Amino acid sequence: MSKPNVVSAIVNPVGSMRVLSSREVNILQDNTKAGLHRLFRQCALAVLSNEMEGDSAEELLQTYTDFDIRIVQEHRGLKLELINAPASAFVDKKLIRGVRENLFSVLRDILYVSSLITSDKRFEHASSSDITHLVFEVLRNANAFITKQMPNIVVCWGGHSIGRDEYEYTKLVGYQLGLRRMNICTGCGPGAMKGPMKGAYIGHAKQRISNGRFIGLTEPGIIAAESPNPIVNELVILPDIEKRLEAFVRLGHGIIVFPGGPGTCEEILYLIGILLHPENKDIPMTMILTGPAGSEAYFEQIDKFIGNTLGREAQEKYQIIVNDPAKVATIMSRGLEKVTRFRRKQGDAYYFNWLLKIDDEFQHPFEPTHENMANLELHKSLPTHQLAANLRRVMSGIVAGNIKEDGVNLIRKHGPYKLSGEPELMKQMDNLLQSFVEQYRMKLPGSHYEPCYEIIDA
Amino acid sequence: MSKPNVVSAIVNPVGSMRVLSSREVNILQDNTKAGLHRLFRQCALAVLSNEMEGDSAEELLQTYTDFDIRIVQEHRGLKLELINAPASAFVDKKLIRGVRENLFSVLRDILYVSSLITSDKRFEHASSSDITHLVFEVLRNANAFITKQMPNIVVCWGGHSIGRDEYEYTKLVGYQLGLRRMNICTGCGPGAMKGPMKGAYIGHAKQRISNGRFIGLTEPGIIAAESPNPIVNELVILPDIEKRLEAFVRLGHGIIVFPGGPGTCEEILYLIGILLHPENKDIPMTMILTGPAGSEAYFEQIDKFIGNTLGREAQEKYQIIVNDPAKVATIMSRGLEKVTRFRRKQGDAYYFNWLLKIDDEFQHPFEPTHENMANLELHKSLPTHQLAANLRRVMSGIVAGNIKEDGVNLIRKHGPYKLSGEPELMKQMDNLLQSFVEQYRMKLPGSHYEPCYEIIDA
Amino acid sequence: MSKPNVVSAIVNPVGSMRVLSSREVNILQDNTKAGLHRLFRQCALAVLSNEMEGDSAEELLQTYTDFDIRIVQEHRGLKLELINAPASAFVDKKLIRGVRENLFSVLRDILYVSSLITSDKRFEHASSSDITHLVFEVLRNANAFITKQMPNIVVCWGGHSIGRDEYEYTKLVGYQLGLRRMNICTGCGPGAMKGPMKGAYIGHAKQRISNGRFIGLTEPGIIAAESPNPIVNELVILPDIEKRLEAFVRLGHGIIVFPGGPGTCEEILYLIGILLHPENKDIPMTMILTGPAGSEAYFEQIDKFIGNTLGREAQEKYQIIVNDPAKVATIMSRGLEKVTRFRRKQGDAYYFNWLLKIDDEFQHPFEPTHENMANLELHKSLPTHQLAANLRRVMSGIVAGNIKEDGVNLIRKHGPYKLSGEPELMKQMDNLLQSFVEQYRMKLPGSHYEPCYEIIDA
Amino acid sequence: MSKPNVVSAIVNPVGSMRVLSSREVNILQDNTKAGLHRLFRQCALAVLSNEMEGDSAEELLQTYTDFDIRIVQEHRGLKLELINAPASAFVDKKLIRGVRENLFSVLRDILYVSSLITSDKRFEHASSSDITHLVFEVLRNANAFITKQMPNIVVCWGGHSIGRDEYEYTKLVGYQLGLRRMNICTGCGPGAMKGPMKGAYIGHAKQRISNGRFIGLTEPGIIAAESPNPIVNELVILPDIEKRLEAFVRLGHGIIVFPGGPGTCEEILYLIGILLHPENKDIPMTMILTGPAGSEAYFEQIDKFIGNTLGREAQEKYQIIVNDPAKVATIMSRGLEKVTRFRRKQGDAYYFNWLLKIDDEFQHPFEPTHENMANLELHKSLPTHQLAANLRRVMSGIVAGNIKEDGVNLIRKHGPYKLSGEPELMKQMDNLLQSFVEQYRMKLPGSHYEPCYEIIDA
Repeated sequence: MSKPNVVSAIVNPVGSMRVLSSREVNILQDNTKAGLHRLFRQCALAVLSNEMEGDSAEELLQTYTDFDIRIVQEHRGLKLELINAPASAFVDKKLIRGVRENLFSVLRDILYVSSLITSDKRFEHASSSDITHLVFEVLRNANAFITKQMPNIVVCWGGHSIGRDEYEYTKLVGYQLGLRRMNICTGCGPGAMKGPMKGAYIGHAKQRISNGRFIGLTEPGIIAAESPNPIVNELVILPDIEKRLEAFVRLGHGIIVFPGGPGTCEEILYLIGILLHPENKDIPMTMILTGPAGSEAYFEQIDKFIGNTLGREAQEKYQIIVNDPAKVATIMSRGLEKVTRFRRKQGDAYYFNWLLKIDDEFQHPFEPTHENMANLELHKSLPTHQLAANLRRVMSGIVAGNIKEDGVNLIRKHGPYKLSGEPELMKQMDNLLQSFVEQYRMKLPGSHYEPCYEIIDA
Repeated sequence: MSKPNVVSAIVNPVGSMRVLSSREVNILQDNTKAGLHRLFRQCALAVLSNEMEGDSAEELLQTYTDFDIRIVQEHRGLKLELINAPASAFVDKKLIRGVRENLFSVLRDILYVSSLITSDKRFEHASSSDITHLVFEVLRNANAFITKQMPNIVVCWGGHSIGRDEYEYTKLVGYQLGLRRMNICTGCGPGAMKGPMKGAYIGHAKQRISNGRFIGLTEPGIIAAESPNPIVNELVILPDIEKRLEAFVRLGHGIIVFPGGPGTCEEILYLIGILLHPENKDIPMTMILTGPAGSEAYFEQIDKFIGNTLGREAQEKYQIIVNDPAKVATIMSRGLEKVTRFRRKQGDAYYFNWLLKIDDEFQHPFEPTHENMANLELHKSLPTHQLAANLRRVMSGIVAGNIKEDGVNLIRKHGPYKLSGEPELMKQMDNLLQSFVEQYRMKLPGSHYEPCYEIIDA
Repeated sequence: MSKPNVVSAIVNPVGSMRVLSSREVNILQDNTKAGLHRLFRQCALAVLSNEMEGDSAEELLQTYTDFDIRIVQEHRGLKLELINAPASAFVDKKLIRGVRENLFSVLRDILYVSSLITSDKRFEHASSSDITHLVFEVLRNANAFITKQMPNIVVCWGGHSIGRDEYEYTKLVGYQLGLRRMNICTGCGPGAMKGPMKGAYIGHAKQRISNGRFIGLTEPGIIAAESPNPIVNELVILPDIEKRLEAFVRLGHGIIVFPGGPGTCEEILYLIGILLHPENKDIPMTMILTGPAGSEAYFEQIDKFIGNTLGREAQEKYQIIVNDPAKVATIMSRGLEKVTRFRRKQGDAYYFNWLLKIDDEFQHPFEPTHENMANLELHKSLPTHQLAANLRRVMSGIVAGNIKEDGVNLIRKHGPYKLSGEPELMKQMDNLLQSFVEQYRMKLPGSHYEPCYEIIDA
Repeated sequence: MSKPNVVSAIVNPVGSMRVLSSREVNILQDNTKAGLHRLFRQCALAVLSNEMEGDSAEELLQTYTDFDIRIVQEHRGLKLELINAPASAFVDKKLIRGVRENLFSVLRDILYVSSLITSDKRFEHASSSDITHLVFEVLRNANAFITKQMPNIVVCWGGHSIGRDEYEYTKLVGYQLGLRRMNICTGCGPGAMKGPMKGAYIGHAKQRISNGRFIGLTEPGIIAAESPNPIVNELVILPDIEKRLEAFVRLGHGIIVFPGGPGTCEEILYLIGILLHPENKDIPMTMILTGPAGSEAYFEQIDKFIGNTLGREAQEKYQIIVNDPAKVATIMSRGLEKVTRFRRKQGDAYYFNWLLKIDDEFQHPFEPTHENMANLELHKSLPTHQLAANLRRVMSGIVAGNIKEDGVNLIRKHGPYKLSGEPELMKQMDNLLQSFVEQYRMKLPGSHYEPCYEIIDA
C-alpha cells in the first residue's frame, strides 16, 4: 500500500467542549481497556477521512496506522494534536472548520457517555426507561434540544451507495425541504445521507437561514464506514446502533426514505415495527419513501416484501412518491404541522418524542454472532411487531457483516451467517437481498461483493 | 401566450432600507418620465423572475404585463405590494427571503442613484474622478465596504449560457475558493455567474462561514436578461454598464474568467485595456482564465485573438489554467496576498481600489447605435489600450443587440450592425464571433440565433 | 490658566461611518469658511470633554487651544488623529469607547447635514415640510429609526444644573423606566440629562437588556456647554435648536420634565405651544412634570406661570407628580400604550411622529439679537400658541445669552437683552426668571450669575 | 406579622438549563430528605427576595410560608410556577429578567451538584484533588470558563452591612475597574458585594461592553441572608462555604477587600493562609485592602491583628490603599498582567488557577458546633498557615452564629460559642470583634446585635 498523504497539526477547539479537567485528559490519553484512547482515535480518524471515498473501516485504519491524536492543555484551554492525519481534511495545511467541530463533538460524546455509563452503573441491566433517558441525556449534552424551534427536523434515510441519478434526486428533495425551512438529520456518510443536506443548504441560502441544522447521528461501529460530511454541523455519537435508531425517531419529526440497501431496510423495519405498536396508534409521524424516475420497480419490491411479511397495516404507515421533490416537501410540511398540533395538545415536548413507545425488543443491542443470527425466529406466525423486530435484526447483522469491523472479522473467521425460517418468508428475503446485490447497494460500486449471509431454507 | 402562474402578496422589508420619507414614496410611485416607477417595476420583475429560464428581457415584460408593484406605508415602516408576480419566486405563497432582500436592494439603489444624479447635477459632464466617486458612493450606500475584511473578493466572469460540464466546473472552482474563505462577486444571472456561488456556498458551509458574501453587480439594462439568483446576498444596481465594470475592478481583488460569449469577451477586453495603462503597471491584479477539460481549444482561440490584436504584453496580464480547480484557488489565494501587501504598503484602502487608473475611454457610456458601431476605429495602428477600448465597445454593442431591450429594438428596425476596420483584424474577430455562435454562447440554447452584426471587410 | 492635561492619540472608527471618499476628507480638513474643519473641531472637543465639570463653551475652547483633529486615510478605512485632547476622555491612554463612538457620530452628522444643505439648496427658503424632511433624513442617516421597536422612547428634559437631591431623583425615575424597558432620550449634558440614563441603565441591567437606547440630541451651539455623556450610545447632532426640538417631539413617544432653568422652560413652552395647535388635539403625548420631595413649590410656580399666561387648556397638557418614581413610570407606560394604539389605528409610523403638526413659528430659527429680542410681542391678546411661541423665544434667547458662544459675545458687546411687553405678563416672567437665579438654575453653581436680560416694563 | 405582598406567576426558562428529563423533575418535586425540593424552594426564595432589605434567612422563610415553586413540563420545555412569591421581584406582574435567570441558575446548580455527589460517591472521603475537581465541574457546568478571555476577573470582598460612604466608595472603585474592562466577582448580597458591580456596570457602559460579567458565588447556607442582586448575571451555587472560597481564589485573578465584618475577615484569613503556603510562594495574586477616606483606622486595626498573629510575611501579601479608586484599579490592572504572563509561561489555564495549592485544612467543611468551636487551637506556636486556618474557622463560626439558619438555631439552644486560646491572641481577637460590633458590621444596622460568641481567656 502506498504511503498516504498526511498532515500533522495542532487544532483549537470549537463549540462548547473546550475545557477539560486533568482527570478527563488522563482517561482520553489512556491506551488501556479502561481508557478511551483507542475509541477516540478511531472515531477521530473517521471524522478526518470524510472527504475520501470508501466504506471500509478496516481499510481506513490500516491506511493510517501512523495516525494519532493527543491532548494538549494550555492557558486558553485544551488543544488537539493531530499526528499524520489524512491530508484531505485540510486546506492549505489548516483543518477544515467543519471537520474540526465534528472532532470536538466526538470528544464531547465519548467522554460524556463514558461518564454516564461508568458512574451510574445503571445501564448494565437497563430498563426501557433507562435507555430512553440515556438517549435523552446524550442528546441534551450535545445541545440538540432547541426549545424555541417548532418541529422541523426531517430525518433522511437511504443508501450510502447509490447511483448518480438517485444522488441528484436526494439533492432536489433536500432543496425543497430547505426552501420550506426544514432541517435535516441523517446518519452521516455519503450518498443519500449527504445529498439532502447539500440541497437543503442551498434552499436555506435562498431563504437566508444561516443557522440551519444538519444533524448527523452515528455510533462508533458505523462512523468509520460512514464518516460525517463536514456539512454536518451537529454531530452526535450514540453508544450503539439501537440507541442511534431511538435518537432518530425521538429527535426527528418526520422521515423520508430514499433507495438504499440492507441498512436502509433495517431502518424501515425498525420504524414500522415501532409504529405498529398499539400504543403508538395515534402518534403522528409522516414517513415517505421516495426516489427519482426509474425507482418505481425498487419501491414496488420493498412494498411487496413488507405487505407479504408484515401485512396491510404496515403498508399504511408510509406513502411512496416517485420523482416529485416539491410534493415530498409539501406533504412533509403538512406532516410537521400535524406533529406540532399533536404535541401542543398533549403537552409533549417539541424537541423529544417522549410519548413514542419503544419496546425492549428494539432497544437492546443485538449482537450479530453466527449463533444469534441462526437463532432468529422468522415466521409469519409471530406477532407483527415481533416479526418486524427480528427482520430488523437480520438486516442489522448483514450491515455488520458487510462493513463493521467486528462483523467483518466474524465472517472472515466463520464464513457467512446462516439464516433460516419459514420458507415462503425466506424466499421473499432472498429476493430482496439479491436485488440489493445486483443494484450495488451492498457496498460502494467498484468493490466486488461477497455475500456475508446464506439463506438456508429459501 | 398562455397565462403565467402568478401570486400577489404584501412583503415586509429586510436590510437597511426600510424607512422612506413621503417624498421618496411619491417619486417611486410616479409613472411619468420624471418618476422612478417604470424603472423600479422593470428591475423588480427581473429579480422576481430569477428562478425561470430565459434571457430575454422583452419576453419577460410581455409575459407579465399585469405585474405591478406598490409601496404601502405602515406604522412599522414600509411594505411592498406585489401584484401578479411570477409564482416561481414564492414557496407556499411566501416570497423567498433572498428574493425579498434583492427586491429591497433594487429599491435602495435606484432611489439613491436618482438622488445623487438629480441633486448634484454633477454627472452631466462628469469628469473621470466624478464617475469614480459615483461608483464609490453607490457601493458605500449598499454597505459593500466591510473595512474589517482583508482582500478576499474574487470576481467571476463567464457566460450565462454554458454547457453542463462547464457549469459543473464553475461549481468546483467556487467550492475550492469557498474552502479558502474567499467571497464571490459576479454579474448575477445563470451559468458561470451562478455556479461559483453555489460551489463557494458549500465550501463556506464546511468552513462554517455563515456570513459569506455573494455579491451581484448589475445594471438596469442587463438585469432583466440576467436576473440575480437569490443566493446573491448583496445586490447592487449600478447606473450603467461602464460603472458596473468599474465597480467590478475597484471592489474585486482578483478575477477569474470562465468560458463565455461576447459579454465575457467584453469584460476581458475591459480589464486588459485598463491593466495595459502605464500607470497601472505595478498594481497587482490576478486574472485567471479557466475551464474544464475540453476547453483548451476555446482558450487557445481567445489567447490567439488577444495576442494578434493587442500583443504579447496583453497576454502577460492573465494565465490560463485548464481543469484544475484547486490550482486556480491556490494561485488566486496567493494573488490576494499580493494585493494585501501592496495596499498596506501604499496605504490604499482594502475595500476600494482607488489607485487603479481608469481612462475616460472606459468610463463614458458607449451607446450602441448603428452609427456609433459603424464608426468604431478598428486598426492595429491605434495605441494598444485605445484598440482594447474599441474592441470592448464592439462586444458591448453585440451584447446589447443580442439581449438588451433597446439594442434588440434597434436591430429589429435597422438590421444588423455593420462593423468595419483593418481586414486582418476583422477576420480575427469574425472567427471569434463565429465560434461563439457555433458554441451556443450568444443566446441560451434552444433559441435560434440570428446574428445582430455583420463584418464588412473581413 | 494652567496647562491642561492632554493626550494625543490615533483612534479607529466605530459605527457605520467608517469609509470616506477623498472629497469628504477634503471638506473636513478645510479650514476656510466653506469647509467643515472649524465646526468639526469644536464639536469634537465638546465630546472629548464630557467628563469635565463646566458649562462654558468659551472656556473650553480657550483651555484647549492646542487641540486639533485630523483625518488619516488607511487601508482599513479612516482613522482620526487627536492632538492635545482632554486627558479625561482616556483611560490608560486609550480613548473611552463611548466617547469614540460619539466622536464618529459628530463626524457623520456634520458631513451629512452639510451634503444635504449645500447640494439641495432647498433649505434656504425652506417650507415647513422641507424642515420636517430634513429632521427625518438626519435621524434616518443616524439609524435612529428602529422599525421593529414598539413606541418606547421617553424624552427627559430638565436642568443641567440641579441639586444633589434632584439628581438622585432623576436616577430613581430612570431606574423605574428602565425596569419597564423604556429607552431614554435627552439633550445630552449633565444633571437631569444624565441621571435618568444612569438609572435606566441599571434597570436595563436587571432586565438583561443589552441594547438599550440612550439617545442624545444636540446641536452645534449647545454641544460645548452640554457635552454628551459617554453613556449616550446614539448621539445625533441636528443643525440648530429648532430642528433639535422637532427631533425630540417626533422621535420621542412621551416626555418627562424635571426641574430646570430657562432651557427647560423653553422646552416646556415649545411642547405646550405645539400641543395647543388645533390639529394636534387628538394626538396622544404624555407629558409629566416631576421632582423629588421639596419640589412642590417649584412646580407650583411653573404651573401658575403657564396658567396665567397660556390658560387652563395649556395646563391640561401635563400632569405634575411629586416624589413617586414608580408612579411616573407606570403612567408613562400607559401613555406609550396609548401612542401605540393611536399610531397603529392611523397607520402612522411608530418611529417618527409624522402626524404632529408643527407650525412655522416653531420651526424657523430664532436669532437672539438684541433687536429680535426687543421686538418680541409679549401680550396676552395674542393667540395662545403664538404667545407660547414668543415666550419660547424669550427663553431660547436667555439660554443663548447664558451659555452659547454667539449669545455670550453679543451680551458682552451690547449689554443685557431688553424685554418688554404687557406689564402683568412681564411681571410673571420676572418672578420666574428671578427664581431661576436664586435656585442656581441659570449656570452651574460656583460661578457668579450676571443676568443677560432686563425686564423693561415689569 | 402582616401579610407580605405576593405574586403568583409562571415563568419561562432562560439560559442553558431549559430541558429536564422526567427523572430530574421528580427529584426536584420530591419533598422528602432524598429529594431536592426543600433546598430548591429555599434558594429560590432567596433569589426572589433580592430587592428587600434584611439579612435574616429565618425571617425570610417565616414571612413567606405560603411560597412554593413547581415545575411545569411543556411542549417547549419546562416552566416554573411560582406561588406567592415576593412581589418586589416583579415589575408590572412580570418577573424581573435578571431574577429569572438567577432562578434557573439555582435550578441548574442544585441539580448538577446532586447528580455529582450521589452518582460518584467520591466526595464522602474526598481527597484534596477530588474537592478541587468538584469545584471545577460545578463552575464548568455553569459556563463560568470563557477560554477566550484574558485574566480579568476581580473578586471583591467586603461587608454586606456597610456605611453610606463606604458603599459609595465601592461604586467608585467598581467604576474604575469597569472603565478598565475588568469583570467583577463577589459573594452576592448587598453592600460591598453590590456597589462594585453597579459602578463597573456604568464603567462598562462607557466602554460599550455589553457582555460584562458580574459573577456571584454563593452557597445554600448563605444565599438567604445575602441574596443575589439581579445585576449578577452569572450566579453559581457551590455546595458549601469552603468550596465557595476555593471557587473565588481559583476563578478570580485578583482580589479587592473592602471594609467588612467577620465574613470579610474570614475571607482575608483564608486567602492569606493559602498564599502563605510555601508552594504558592511564586504564584502572583494581587490583594488590595481599600476603603474611603476615614477608613484608615479600620485597616490599621486589621493590619495590626494580622501582623501580631501571623507576622510580617502575612502582611506582605496585601497592600492597603485609602481613598484612591483610580490607583486601586491601576494596580489591579498591573496585577492582572502579571497573572497573564505567569499563566502563559507556566501553560496554566487562564480560567482556572490549577497551580494554587490549597491545603486540606482549608477545603474540608468546618461544622461550627459548640464543641468544634471550643476545641479550636489558637496559639501563636502553631505553624502560621495552620493558625490562619483556625482563625478562619473562628470567623466562619461567628458568621454562622450571626446569620445562617443552622448556626442561629445552635446559639439559641446552647448559648454563645466559647472561644479560648493563648491570652494575648484572644485579646487581639476580642478587640477586633468588639470593633465590628461597634461599627455595626455584625448585622445590618437597625437590628440589635447579641454576640454569638464569648472569649474565655482574653
